[in-house]
Amino acid sequence: MGRGGQTRKEIIRKAAPIFNQKGFEGAALSDLMLATGLEKGGIYRHFSSKQQLAAEAFDYSWKIALDTRFHRTAEIRNTVDRLKQIVRNFRDRSAGMVPGGCPLLNTAADSDDGNPLLRAKARQAFDSWFERFRSIVEEGQRRSEIRRGVEPMKLSTLLVSTLEGALLLRRLQRSQVALDIACRHLEDFLETSIRPTNSRPRTERT
Amino acid sequence: MGRGGQTRKEIIRKAAPIFNQKGFEGAALSDLMLATGLEKGGIYRHFSSKQQLAAEAFDYSWKIALDTRFHRTAEIRNTVDRLKQIVRNFRDRSAGMVPGGCPLLNTAADSDDGNPLLRAKARQAFDSWFERFRSIVEEGQRRSEIRRGVEPMKLSTLLVSTLEGALLLRRLQRSQVALDIACRHLEDFLETSIRPTNSRPRTERT
Repeated sequence: MGRGGQTRKEIIRKAAPIFNQKGFEGAALSDLMLATGLEKGGIYRHFSSKQQLAAEAFDYSWKIALDTRFHRTAEIRNTVDRLKQIVRNFRDRSAGMVPGGCPLLNTAADSDDGNPLLRAKARQAFDSWFERFRSIVEEGQRRSEIRRGVEPMKLSTLLVSTLEGALLLRRLQRSQVALDIACRHLEDFLETSIRPTNSRPRTERT
Repeated sequence: MGRGGQTRKEIIRKAAPIFNQKGFEGAALSDLMLATGLEKGGIYRHFSSKQQLAAEAFDYSWKIALDTRFHRTAEIRNTVDRLKQIVRNFRDRSAGMVPGGCPLLNTAADSDDGNPLLRAKARQAFDSWFERFRSIVEEGQRRSEIRRGVEPMKLSTLLVSTLEGALLLRRLQRSQVALDIACRHLEDFLETSIRPTNSRPRTERT
């Protein structure tokens, strides 16, 4: 990567927390200049528009969020246990995320009114998440670890809704309570409605 | 109410959709002037600041949201059925709300960074919601329609998280799918985990 590519990456990395914390409208040029240490021309030499920069900053923030939430879950063999760990990661692992909280929550709430590029990015983000859940559910069904009737789209939508809603309340309440409640609810739900009765582990059966 | 009071109410009513759609930062003075048909001085004669106006606009939007979601639920005698209807109202009744979607979602997502008055309003909004749920749960427990072990705070947090998260996905996907899934999940949950087994209505038992 040439020096231009390096600078471009650095701009994205430094702009990401600004957009994630302040939103597209709220992220002022002066904020971006302060964060990057560059003048306007120095920033926009590398990006065609503020939308373009915001979109790439979103991708950067989202990749980190996804890596954080799926952290070390691939190595969990049982797929229901793997889903439960993803749910717990959501609750427990926020260190290392780009400051400002969940980029999907921020962008979906922010881009309601006419920012098609960012909205498309947020939709792709949800889709990438859904694809991961779908492949886990399909794997689990092949191995009879997940009930046949479970629809991947329904399950992932429910997991994402509940967790993102709890993140919203965490933001409002400045407390982990909502996330704790959501997490326990989903763990129970995965245990009682997703795992087949006959494959429930003994330790969870008491 | 004198003419000043009337004008003040009109400003709030017309500013509410602007703040609800564009957020606090995004709501420009020019937008507010266009919506109200007033000059800057005409608006700010009635409010000490943009924060003050935004806070009162939030209260206005929130009251409508709450009335919409609890619409005709007080007359449902069984408390679990009442909770189920509130969940369904959430899904089915969005006409009549202030344009821009759920004010709590918008404000909680928007006011992360330094708008203490709006954040306090959003917290109060959640609290007012929680109080309504709490009184329903307590009434239900007195009448043995709701299991003794159910904690009102946990139940209302779960309902609010799941529904608000689904609203976020609706916004992202421009589709009712997430809200449908969340609503059905919560109806099931209310039926299987909140209503005591012996008081489950026959029609729901099949």
